[in-house]
Amino acid sequence: MVNYTPNIGVCYYPEHWPEDQWQSDAERMVQAGISQVRLAEFSWSKIEARRGEFSWGWLDRAVEILAQAGLSITMCTPTATPPKWLVDEMPDMLAYDADGRPRGFGSRRHYSFAHKGYRGESRRITRLIAERYGQHPAVTAWQTDNEYGCHDTAISWCPAARDGFRLWLADTYQTIDRLNDAWGTAFWSMRYASFDEIELPHLTVTEANPSHTLDFYRFSTEMVRQFNAEQVDILRQLSPGRPIAHNYMGMFDQFDHRPVAAALDIASWDSYPIGMLQNMASVGAPDTDMLTDCLRVGDPDFQAFHHDLYRGMGRLWVMEQQPGPVNWARTNAVPADGAVRMWSFEAAAHGAELISYFRWRQVPFAQEQMHAGLCLPDGRDAPAMKEAKQFIDEAGQLSWDAPSSAKIALIYEYEASWMAALDGQSADFSHLRLVLDVYRAIRQNGGSVDIVGSAADLSGYSLIIVPAVMTVSDKLADALHQSTAKIFMGPRTGAKTANFQIPANLPPGNLQSLAGFVIEQIDALPANQPVSCKWRNHAGRLHIWHERGQLMTGASAEGETESGLPLLIHNDRTSYLTGWVETGLMTLICAEQMRDAGLDVHEMPEYLRVRQSGDMLIFTNYGPRPVTIPDTFSGRLLLGERILPPAGVSILSSDN
Amino acid sequence: MVNYTPNIGVCYYPEHWPEDQWQSDAERMVQAGISQVRLAEFSWSKIEARRGEFSWGWLDRAVEILAQAGLSITMCTPTATPPKWLVDEMPDMLAYDADGRPRGFGSRRHYSFAHKGYRGESRRITRLIAERYGQHPAVTAWQTDNEYGCHDTAISWCPAARDGFRLWLADTYQTIDRLNDAWGTAFWSMRYASFDEIELPHLTVTEANPSHTLDFYRFSTEMVRQFNAEQVDILRQLSPGRPIAHNYMGMFDQFDHRPVAAALDIASWDSYPIGMLQNMASVGAPDTDMLTDCLRVGDPDFQAFHHDLYRGMGRLWVMEQQPGPVNWARTNAVPADGAVRMWSFEAAAHGAELISYFRWRQVPFAQEQMHAGLCLPDGRDAPAMKEAKQFIDEAGQLSWDAPSSAKIALIYEYEASWMAALDGQSADFSHLRLVLDVYRAIRQNGGSVDIVGSAADLSGYSLIIVPAVMTVSDKLADALHQSTAKIFMGPRTGAKTANFQIPANLPPGNLQSLAGFVIEQIDALPANQPVSCKWRNHAGRLHIWHERGQLMTGASAEGETESGLPLLIHNDRTSYLTGWVETGLMTLICAEQMRDAGLDVHEMPEYLRVRQSGDMLIFTNYGPRPVTIPDTFSGRLLLGERILPPAGVSILSSDN
Amino acid sequence: MVNYTPNIGVCYYPEHWPEDQWQSDAERMVQAGISQVRLAEFSWSKIEARRGEFSWGWLDRAVEILAQAGLSITMCTPTATPPKWLVDEMPDMLAYDADGRPRGFGSRRHYSFAHKGYRGESRRITRLIAERYGQHPAVTAWQTDNEYGCHDTAISWCPAARDGFRLWLADTYQTIDRLNDAWGTAFWSMRYASFDEIELPHLTVTEANPSHTLDFYRFSTEMVRQFNAEQVDILRQLSPGRPIAHNYMGMFDQFDHRPVAAALDIASWDSYPIGMLQNMASVGAPDTDMLTDCLRVGDPDFQAFHHDLYRGMGRLWVMEQQPGPVNWARTNAVPADGAVRMWSFEAAAHGAELISYFRWRQVPFAQEQMHAGLCLPDGRDAPAMKEAKQFIDEAGQLSWDAPSSAKIALIYEYEASWMAALDGQSADFSHLRLVLDVYRAIRQNGGSVDIVGSAADLSGYSLIIVPAVMTVSDKLADALHQSTAKIFMGPRTGAKTANFQIPANLPPGNLQSLAGFVIEQIDALPANQPVSCKWRNHAGRLHIWHERGQLMTGASAEGETESGLPLLIHNDRTSYLTGWVETGLMTLICAEQMRDAGLDVHEMPEYLRVRQSGDMLIFTNYGPRPVTIPDTFSGRLLLGERILPPAGVSILSSDN
Repeated sequence: MVNYTPNIGVCYYPEHWPEDQWQSDAERMVQAGISQVRLAEFSWSKIEARRGEFSWGWLDRAVEILAQAGLSITMCTPTATPPKWLVDEMPDMLAYDADGRPRGFGSRRHYSFAHKGYRGESRRITRLIAERYGQHPAVTAWQTDNEYGCHDTAISWCPAARDGFRLWLADTYQTIDRLNDAWGTAFWSMRYASFDEIELPHLTVTEANPSHTLDFYRFSTEMVRQFNAEQVDILRQLSPGRPIAHNYMGMFDQFDHRPVAAALDIASWDSYPIGMLQNMASVGAPDTDMLTDCLRVGDPDFQAFHHDLYRGMGRLWVMEQQPGPVNWARTNAVPADGAVRMWSFEAAAHGAELISYFRWRQVPFAQEQMHAGLCLPDGRDAPAMKEAKQFIDEAGQLSWDAPSSAKIALIYEYEASWMAALDGQSADFSHLRLVLDVYRAIRQNGGSVDIVGSAADLSGYSLIIVPAVMTVSDKLADALHQSTAKIFMGPRTGAKTANFQIPANLPPGNLQSLAGFVIEQIDALPANQPVSCKWRNHAGRLHIWHERGQLMTGASAEGETESGLPLLIHNDRTSYLTGWVETGLMTLICAEQMRDAGLDVHEMPEYLRVRQSGDMLIFTNYGPRPVTIPDTFSGRLLLGERILPPAGVSILSSDN
Repeated sequence: MVNYTPNIGVCYYPEHWPEDQWQSDAERMVQAGISQVRLAEFSWSKIEARRGEFSWGWLDRAVEILAQAGLSITMCTPTATPPKWLVDEMPDMLAYDADGRPRGFGSRRHYSFAHKGYRGESRRITRLIAERYGQHPAVTAWQTDNEYGCHDTAISWCPAARDGFRLWLADTYQTIDRLNDAWGTAFWSMRYASFDEIELPHLTVTEANPSHTLDFYRFSTEMVRQFNAEQVDILRQLSPGRPIAHNYMGMFDQFDHRPVAAALDIASWDSYPIGMLQNMASVGAPDTDMLTDCLRVGDPDFQAFHHDLYRGMGRLWVMEQQPGPVNWARTNAVPADGAVRMWSFEAAAHGAELISYFRWRQVPFAQEQMHAGLCLPDGRDAPAMKEAKQFIDEAGQLSWDAPSSAKIALIYEYEASWMAALDGQSADFSHLRLVLDVYRAIRQNGGSVDIVGSAADLSGYSLIIVPAVMTVSDKLADALHQSTAKIFMGPRTGAKTANFQIPANLPPGNLQSLAGFVIEQIDALPANQPVSCKWRNHAGRLHIWHERGQLMTGASAEGETESGLPLLIHNDRTSYLTGWVETGLMTLICAEQMRDAGLDVHEMPEYLRVRQSGDMLIFTNYGPRPVTIPDTFSGRLLLGERILPPAGVSILSSDN
Repeated sequence: MVNYTPNIGVCYYPEHWPEDQWQSDAERMVQAGISQVRLAEFSWSKIEARRGEFSWGWLDRAVEILAQAGLSITMCTPTATPPKWLVDEMPDMLAYDADGRPRGFGSRRHYSFAHKGYRGESRRITRLIAERYGQHPAVTAWQTDNEYGCHDTAISWCPAARDGFRLWLADTYQTIDRLNDAWGTAFWSMRYASFDEIELPHLTVTEANPSHTLDFYRFSTEMVRQFNAEQVDILRQLSPGRPIAHNYMGMFDQFDHRPVAAALDIASWDSYPIGMLQNMASVGAPDTDMLTDCLRVGDPDFQAFHHDLYRGMGRLWVMEQQPGPVNWARTNAVPADGAVRMWSFEAAAHGAELISYFRWRQVPFAQEQMHAGLCLPDGRDAPAMKEAKQFIDEAGQLSWDAPSSAKIALIYEYEASWMAALDGQSADFSHLRLVLDVYRAIRQNGGSVDIVGSAADLSGYSLIIVPAVMTVSDKLADALHQSTAKIFMGPRTGAKTANFQIPANLPPGNLQSLAGFVIEQIDALPANQPVSCKWRNHAGRLHIWHERGQLMTGASAEGETESGLPLLIHNDRTSYLTGWVETGLMTLICAEQMRDAGLDVHEMPEYLRVRQSGDMLIFTNYGPRPVTIPDTFSGRLLLGERILPPAGVSILSSDN
């Protein structure tokens, strides 16, 4: 485990600029406090313009100039953008969309993870670049490919995927009868006589069998895992000792990241707070006030959530940090003054070792020409430059510890997100939105959270939150049964078996005795028709999802809906939440869960958030107005004031 | 005509459950009061796992167990779900969507009605199952296939349909010049030189010729008719004396049901009140209050409308009755307490001989695992079980007569619905919504209605309503001209010839002399820009559609729009409504039509509805609050009280 | 230059009607004051039912009957609707949609401009019809094809287009390296090794390179230009002395009209005010009040804008004028009483020589049977007939001059519209909506405008408006630098180079020294989140788009946003508007621009508009209530009163 004193980095594309600019670029990077430069992830056609015709010189020279300036390099495999000549050689390498059409050359990520030919090409170019730069002293880290799955590319509906899926199914189930049982093909006469009869689960008359789709998603994750692992194996061999990263994204669940991350050292992600807020409507609209108040800073919990999520999979880097307006959201506002500095401090607070800004200089051509950089297209500093510099100067004055575990674990499973969508009782249910609502409620009580998978060691936590973990593995069930922590679960936890069937004992299945509740009926409500409820003299509303059922012996209900149905079930040290309660009540319920777990609760003003990092409490203000740190926080100010301006940061020396 | 003392039934899938459960299932069915069990409509691959390899034993044993328990069986042809091996044998049997893509295996209804090969397979499997069970004493009825047209499958845009359509056109028109004249191909240079030049009316640059599309819809209906009739012919031969049903759907007009129903004995339908209310937005949104107030019971007129519609085509069964939350609407709420009982009574009130719940036990796997049954997946009773039992117990105490004709006939034509959509003056016009608005207005005045086709015998009616019957057949025109009943027609009645042309004498064409009005211009308004109007001191609004024209000699106008244009035209015993008036005014206008026809009018409280059945007046409360039966209804209470709770039912002995 | 004393015309389809009606039709046309009849644009299959089998007789006779009645004829080439036999001969002549699917026969415009085979057929049929009627004395004008581009047909994604595009690129760039530089293919590894590698810019994983797309749009315009020019060459040769027109559309920018218009004499367009208002939502919704108030007359500036736009490309005709409800908008209301007369006067006011109503008689069959004509389908006059007659009678009493240039030039470029959309910073930005907002603001100040292209002679203007001209040609830049007029530009003016790159000196590029402003950041805002601003004590709002940057020496800022950023930059005789201000403030700012240019400003009441034509000031009232001409207008009334009723027209003899 390395120390995570934060550093700053940048994404740089020497291939976009005249070679005579490289030297001054490198010098200005150093002056700005940058220490790490990412290179070459979209450079394949510049390296190999035709098969076997290589041009390494430009990259050799770029590496040397950066190295001479004292910069470290994150070298990338360029597999996200195979050249046109390669696509023309093997057109069936293209990914296919869900409508069954090839997704052509002309932008990026135009390949299927399941295509054996392209997998060979991926290994070939990885080997070549690793052979050339793997032992270079300035190359201190690697990134595989770029943003796996971006633009819905984790899943390809192509012939190569179909063929691979059949083999994967045969390998998984061994006999077709086992598959027929697992999928329940007795329903609608869907029985298969052999694995070769199985198609991809799309273009059906009405919805495909959800077990079939779930398996295809799992297969698709396995293809991403193999693709990544093949590159990693080569890099480990040819570039020993360098940590390897991949740059994940925000709000992206189309493959299970953990099997991929298992082969890597660093779990980095690309953080674009403003664009993400615009796009959050796709997972259930944030409330209107937040859309307006946070237009120029982003959702106050979204970045933190992803820092915590990815830190659970490896060393945390922010590989791409938004430095100004981006070009890809519905609309693209300019960040608030101070936002770039605030985002950087927040990342560091959550354990990021590196905050790497995307990109050095705004490029004046092609698809992303309106995406800001640290420099304007004419080379002058863009507004973000001084905020990056300010951050690294201020951060350097502070004493950072390696991130310690929080006392609260929130279990997030990618498969649960797929399953919640496949089990289509409600078009208004977003798994990510529910999990984020719970995470937000904890933060509104001043809590710090670790986000972990089902297989994590849960022994150190005081409070374990299990929201909508649709399938509970035996390992997780055992851990929860044996845990002495406070457990807060539901709704939808344990709703399905691993094969996407309703558990024989009804949900929450293997957590039923823990929950003390047997779920018999789902009341899936239109989002605009919530139900009133009350809990301990607090009135509130429950929306979208509510579960009805029977209390088991020993369990008790607390709170009720307008028709008298139970809201929260208590059973020994476990609480089961039967529905999706709206923000106000969710915050109150979470506060009690925290208190029951022996944790401090702080009533945070709107948009103020805090994260503990070692001895520091790092506060951020995502709101449009100044806010004051509550009196319940004591300690010495290390940075800023107790009143934070918009986009402000303050740090208290922790004494509790 | 059989007596329709209501019975209850259930849909049962022995193929989903271990054989050792079947016996206890049968016994519990009998205990619940169930007498009829539907079997096997999705069982093909269980019967014939590979071509010619038959497994009849399981079905033989299921039939015996049910028969031994005293249950009657509705046996089904399993053609809605052809097995994968069959699709692989003849991939061109698949239906194609309007975009020209095959709709693949993996769910259900993956076949084209026009495919000759599949038609042969349909006859083959029908013959086999009829040979085996046709004479079994417990098999008392048949169902052909399942939900013809579900998931937009009545119309297939496949090569087999194109080839069949050309032959059908040649047969219909005999010479290409007749077709050119009928379609008006002089327009836009669309002239055809031979039937072989004709394509399906899709994938054109802008909209296709509406006469062309109308003929393709008619051809598609003919394919459904033939498909069904072929099965019926075999069943009549091999299972004599058993009535044959098909289970239609709600809000579904994609084929003309009457030619299909003509070959059958029973017109059954699948009634899902809650899901249907959610989906009604697709035919023009119900008002917001109703969406909220009726969330857990459904639209108060929707079920009644369909009972009346299908009773006009044969003996009425409800083949599938919603027993709890379903899985296929946007969101899926739990029904109100009492709703299952209320729906059952309402069906019986409208003449249903059988109310058959879907399904016996919630199945824990595959696509419909979240669809409730009478039993939970673990076998215990679901909440609906006791309501079904209560219904059959209470119904058994009452004396039911065969349904007598109402005094009001509402003419509904499927082709009119297609034509209203094809004649696209307004994206906001829904034919079904308009007809339902008129039907609702009659019911809000306490009326009972028969819904009939253009060819029906209209002699017994006091009031004949002809709303938007776009093409009026000569037979209907004659019947209306000769009738002595009060006639209430328009808007859009008689708007087109049978070939989808504007009548030479302008609309309402062959009803012009009856209507006393010549329509010259259509004012098609955005739904959110209604026009004020008044009628007999009542202010109201007209929306979406208004017709302008000239009064003929002898006719008089009553009511007017804000710009002084006529609202209602009276001509002798006929009234023509020139526009779509909103609910309040529509109810008042319909009340007068009823009075003019010599019928009683009752002012029904919101959400209270009544249907006469023999000597009984059966009241249902679809609202969220208690309502009182108006004093204008006298008689002895046979069930319930004069104040009905939400989802309540009361029955008065009729004395008027 | 001919005198433009307005005439009226009509579109007539003898092929739709029995021949024995033609004579009386012609006589009634003459009685109505009609002098010009358009013929035959959809008649190909009637002329040539099979290849080489010609039927000219019917058209010969129709021409003779019209000629004998004294009517002049606009003859058309029938290439918009190739017959089915031709499509069957060469199926690859079909246009392909952006999804890559052929757009089939069955409606109209089913051809690709890039298909060499169809281009040959276009020349063949043009030659045949020109040979037959080119020298006929009654044939006084020609129309090529019909509504190029209607239904998104200007751009075809077909193999013929791909092949042609490659050749066009090779011709344009000469070497592939020049293309690589122009497109910036160093980005995302998009480098091409040869022109043969280049695909059409669609079906990519994420957005295609905007330079690539821009070039494909340019190529597509070139195909339209060639197609039209080939017909024109033949017509010039075989029908000398007759002016040639094409009928363009409203709100249509999918090809650059000016290169097409360069080969023609007359720039006519098809004016459907009511349908266009309904469809304007697609370019940013008009405010709700206008949608309601103008439902039956259309947007008060939309028609004028297009008259001014097309008059900038040739002699102005309105080839198709809406005479009643149309059939193709979302909903289709009846026009207000007087609207047809008002639209006709307005067209004449803007310089239209001919207003030709579409169509003579409503056709009772096929796709447009609900589209009104001057006659009802049964032959009687429709309401529009008397308004057309009234217009031509009244217009004949007035003295019309050839249209003189206005003092205000607004520069509109089609490529700018494409580029604004391609540079997707905001889904809420509509180029046409912004330009129309500026045009509206001028008109709300009583101004008259010429709309011209970048290459126009700007010497006579007092005020030159350059709104969002994304790329400024060297010629335009020179003209503006040398002009002594007041210049009002921005936002987005000069934002890109001709290759769709950000200018090296940053926007507004070659107008930077004129503007006195360097644009560094775009603040692209959601339409529902405007920013408050003020200008000279006037409060207002800025929405959707705002540019931030640096003032250059000598420039000054006026007005500011809520965060203090500059709104309007003054630099010598130039003003640069940094954002999209809403209507109220836009009108005030434009008033000052007009005053600074020495022009009169009138404060027009809502919905009242005026256009100067020679010595006449022609007023129109697009509002639902009477309005009064302001006292600032003096002069003698030539028509109407100073108070205009809804849809009213008044004319003052100009004395200023």
